[in-house]
Amino acid sequence: MGRTDFARHRCPVARSMAVLGERWAILVLREAFYGTTRFDDFQRHLGIAPNILSARLRSLVAHGLLERGEGPRAEYRLTEKGRDFFPAYLALKRWADRWMAPPEGPVVVLRERVTGEEVTAPPPLGRDGRPLGPEDVRALPGPGASPALRARLGGADA
Amino acid sequence: MGRTDFARHRCPVARSMAVLGERWAILVLREAFYGTTRFDDFQRHLGIAPNILSARLRSLVAHGLLERGEGPRAEYRLTEKGRDFFPAYLALKRWADRWMAPPEGPVVVLRERVTGEEVTAPPPLGRDGRPLGPEDVRALPGPGASPALRARLGGADA
Repeated sequence: MGRTDFARHRCPVARSMAVLGERWAILVLREAFYGTTRFDDFQRHLGIAPNILSARLRSLVAHGLLERGEGPRAEYRLTEKGRDFFPAYLALKRWADRWMAPPEGPVVVLRERVTGEEVTAPPPLGRDGRPLGPEDVRALPGPGASPALRARLGGADA
Repeated sequence: MGRTDFARHRCPVARSMAVLGERWAILVLREAFYGTTRFDDFQRHLGIAPNILSARLRSLVAHGLLERGEGPRAEYRLTEKGRDFFPAYLALKRWADRWMAPPEGPVVVLRERVTGEEVTAPPPLGRDGRPLGPEDVRALPGPGASPALRARLGGADA
């Protein structure tokens, strides 16, 4: 059985897995968020094999999250699409810090430069101000839903 | 070169990639968030090969995001650790809907059951109320940082 081509999925989350659903991709983005721009620095900070790093950077460039400058020692810079992943990275970090951190606590703490306040992803809240869980939410077909998904989820979204 | 064992990384985000950094894992969680509990339903909704689905469910159970009931047709239920990933899923969906959706728009819209309000991940905001980007944030070593990371990031966090 061949590998599923996630880029051809209709669901945007599935499509995003074509670029992000690879163990190193989010760690390369993490380094970019923390200010890394050069191949050698990505390699040193991540302890990643050069061929794997090359492939990950190429994929992130191809999918428009990073752009590469000119020349052999060019810098990799976040695009708007890449920068816009930062809130999702924060939300993932929040979960990871809660459930996967070493006993001493989080490895990295993020602070707003101008205020020194700790930065974490805000939880989604309901109208009543309580955190929303999956059971509080109903999934409805959106404008891009396929007929099969509409049939499965029932009533169209307003 | 062998595959890196992400579960042995110190960074919690890297460790979370041991379970989530696989293309299907987040889509299996997505289905669980939307109410799917049975193997056959996961398989039908995801169009996934049974052996891959088995491996993904087993991994999510082993890492404590799902728990499996008793018996051959047991249900898979989200644990607290699994439910707590919902905000990160919402943040990923927000990014994916913005950058990876088909031209018609998002495939699925989430609405709060009791109010019908659309549910999306709230963006992280700075003290001044503006959305925070990666350049607004400084990474500092947390209580679980290794000596190498402390040396790299400089001054310890308060």
